[in-house]
Amino acid sequence: MQICTPDWVKHAAFYQIFPDRFARSTKPQALARSRTLDFERANYESWTAGPTLQGYKGGNLWGVLNQLDYIQDLGCNALYLTPIFQSASNHRYHTHDYYQVDPILGGNEALLALLEAAHRRNMHVVLDGVFNHASRGFYYFNDILENGPHSPWVEWFRIEGWPLSAYDGSLPANYVGWNDNRSLPVFNHGHPDVREYIMRVGEYWIEQGIDGWRLDVAGEIEAPGFWQEFRDRVKALNSEAYIVGEVWEDSRQWLDGTQFDAVMNYLFCASTIAFVAGDRVQMDLVKLPPYEPYPALDAAGYAAKIEDLLALYPWEIQLAQFNLLDSHDTARLLTIAGGDRASVLLGTLLLITFPGAPCIYYGDEVALPGAFDPDSRRCFPPEAEWDRDLLDAHKRLLTLRRGHPALQTGNYRVISAQGMLYVFARSLDAEELTVVVNAGLEEASATIQAGALRSQPTRVLYGSARLAATDGNLSIRVPARSGCILG
Amino acid sequence: MQICTPDWVKHAAFYQIFPDRFARSTKPQALARSRTLDFERANYESWTAGPTLQGYKGGNLWGVLNQLDYIQDLGCNALYLTPIFQSASNHRYHTHDYYQVDPILGGNEALLALLEAAHRRNMHVVLDGVFNHASRGFYYFNDILENGPHSPWVEWFRIEGWPLSAYDGSLPANYVGWNDNRSLPVFNHGHPDVREYIMRVGEYWIEQGIDGWRLDVAGEIEAPGFWQEFRDRVKALNSEAYIVGEVWEDSRQWLDGTQFDAVMNYLFCASTIAFVAGDRVQMDLVKLPPYEPYPALDAAGYAAKIEDLLALYPWEIQLAQFNLLDSHDTARLLTIAGGDRASVLLGTLLLITFPGAPCIYYGDEVALPGAFDPDSRRCFPPEAEWDRDLLDAHKRLLTLRRGHPALQTGNYRVISAQGMLYVFARSLDAEELTVVVNAGLEEASATIQAGALRSQPTRVLYGSARLAATDGNLSIRVPARSGCILG
Repeated sequence: MQICTPDWVKHAAFYQIFPDRFARSTKPQALARSRTLDFERANYESWTAGPTLQGYKGGNLWGVLNQLDYIQDLGCNALYLTPIFQSASNHRYHTHDYYQVDPILGGNEALLALLEAAHRRNMHVVLDGVFNHASRGFYYFNDILENGPHSPWVEWFRIEGWPLSAYDGSLPANYVGWNDNRSLPVFNHGHPDVREYIMRVGEYWIEQGIDGWRLDVAGEIEAPGFWQEFRDRVKALNSEAYIVGEVWEDSRQWLDGTQFDAVMNYLFCASTIAFVAGDRVQMDLVKLPPYEPYPALDAAGYAAKIEDLLALYPWEIQLAQFNLLDSHDTARLLTIAGGDRASVLLGTLLLITFPGAPCIYYGDEVALPGAFDPDSRRCFPPEAEWDRDLLDAHKRLLTLRRGHPALQTGNYRVISAQGMLYVFARSLDAEELTVVVNAGLEEASATIQAGALRSQPTRVLYGSARLAATDGNLSIRVPARSGCILG
Repeated sequence: MQICTPDWVKHAAFYQIFPDRFARSTKPQALARSRTLDFERANYESWTAGPTLQGYKGGNLWGVLNQLDYIQDLGCNALYLTPIFQSASNHRYHTHDYYQVDPILGGNEALLALLEAAHRRNMHVVLDGVFNHASRGFYYFNDILENGPHSPWVEWFRIEGWPLSAYDGSLPANYVGWNDNRSLPVFNHGHPDVREYIMRVGEYWIEQGIDGWRLDVAGEIEAPGFWQEFRDRVKALNSEAYIVGEVWEDSRQWLDGTQFDAVMNYLFCASTIAFVAGDRVQMDLVKLPPYEPYPALDAAGYAAKIEDLLALYPWEIQLAQFNLLDSHDTARLLTIAGGDRASVLLGTLLLITFPGAPCIYYGDEVALPGAFDPDSRRCFPPEAEWDRDLLDAHKRLLTLRRGHPALQTGNYRVISAQGMLYVFARSLDAEELTVVVNAGLEEASATIQAGALRSQPTRVLYGSARLAATDGNLSIRVPARSGCILG
């Protein structure tokens, strides 16, 4: 079969937003009389204080809407929002109502306004769909808590006995919770009404104008044909809708063209961190998630990992992969690397020049630090705290990617991998760009044999390097802990 | 001030529906592809089995829509629906979402279709607003359960300590529940956001086309100005919207013209049962609710009660009162009266000829029995089980009321009350009708002095009676346990 992924993703750069923490604003004056309330008097935590596991900062979609200039100026043209549906949790992975945007975020009204504003800017918006489990307050599960075996919905979840104990951990829960967490009752995806319910949620928001779904713990839904049907129904409404699964490991079973367009590329993430941060990786910060940004890799090790990864899935999938260095589910790279800025700069260079869509986790671009949740979900800092050099590097790299189709859909060839110096080329039609990363502590040089590149690069488009051509070979010398793009 | 109540109510006859139990149907074929699912595979109880406290029968608004012919043929032109918003309880007084009609009922789509169909028939629809308390699954309360003191909504309810214990009755709840019921957390109506939230719910459904609100345990919301604001905002959108409070006792403080148009007239109900059922009243069935259909009344006692009641509120209020003989909150009159059909016939005659809008509790018209909840909420029976004579009497009485403006807005004068024989007249302009009820076990007669009535009635419009005129006086003889309308 012909595998087909959305074209726009191949040219996209995502900005991942954790909505409670990115920005907060009141709704536009024109909507002051609308039904959606601004809850300005709610019991929010201070924006500038560190986040807690259970507190809310009160960020909202009106805030996101007001920051579209910033995001666009950064160089991103797509948003991935972690969950926004009504939820009794600050991360909103405990869905309370799949048809309502959380009132704190501004409700459905705010999402529709955001979609309109984003589309006007030719930006795309992808939402997070949490379809493996719901929450204790979710109507269909809550009814079981309230009515026990009398509930009409007893078959919607995985009930194992009576009574249920949803809140008292000293008694058996008697139902299946995700990760044994009783706050996250797992759907019975084998029930036809559950399946249809989820399918219609998937369709509904596509009809409302979202551009795709990031599917939470997608690999855990194993009902036969589930994701095939989801894809078919979503694509029937918008053939360019993007479907990206949260699968951390080898995802070949999901990336056969009938299910997801892509996965969250933690395989890229892990290898890249292992190369650019190496022994700096704080092991206590990378032990929980199923990705392994260790042991430290040299250039050859990294090349092998990348070549394996690029061989794993069809090229049409690779071009639509959702590439990242960190997320709300990990510590931030800056913190993983023990505060080493160069690791972030090198990782970002590799991210933005890799096939597939790069995603910047909000705040990474200004050096917001963060260990595990809740620390990786700090509020976006005020301008005075920004690392402007890092921000500028992000902008230059995203500008280069945008201006050079080869960085988007060009093929990827490892050119050289010696010591800590890694060189690869991206080429498309007549265009070829060469990317060089020296992850070592010493200045390093590579000699590229004549013919290894289609043409001799002459310009340093990003970073600093000394180029010297001898007998048709090219010598590239780059400072320690730095990288460059040549064209 | 000029007290003003909706004109349509004065001419209305309500049919009260408990939506889980009245009728069930699938949605029209034309809407088959709409987002609202029919949950035909849900775990409903058998329609023909007795109801339980926690089980669902699966009645829905599509069923109500399909029965509009029946309701109209009965002679009712208004519906009062007990709660229909999403709720994890079969009675739906535990509101889970004030903006969503329960999915089992057919969702918002079904309500809008019902409103449209009802309005096309010139029928009105009043919903039940439960604004004193919500439920454990209600998003704003559920968030407090999930996040404790971190919740943005801690001030929305009446929290008294931590931790809360919502489901474990062996620990203190630590929040105020209605009637000490921890499944019904009471709102903090003093919080401006709570108040505004409720006001907007009130407005929203009026904008969607409902014709009024029946306000559950309305007397318990004592925040200053609350109901005045509610009235002002609802009436600003629809000056003819009907606002009827659930207040069982003397309601003068609420019926000052600035709050409710009416209350549920349990004072009428209690006196009328005490007269028509008398010593038949099963005392174990009338002890719980705050109404007292006892001790047995003779005609003079009943006349005194009725005259007191008619003196209690302004006439403009009387004409809009919500009159009833029973409801989902009481046992059914037939059962209260120990199965005595005559009590129901006499009560219904008094109900339908009383100033204010009569309300028939679904099934009463076909002699559906019922003790306390859940028994008073049985499913509507199949035709084979209907008491057709009782149904016919309802139809004739409602037809008479509809055809005689004096029975709607005419004044009410007690003419005679001797032994168990009660006579009153309703007159408007040139029209006067006389109603005679003999609640006694013997045939009885009354002699009406010349001049007591505006004109001598000559026709028996309902029931049977022998009339004899002597010297300008009128002698009316009616059989035991029967009543009539003369005109």
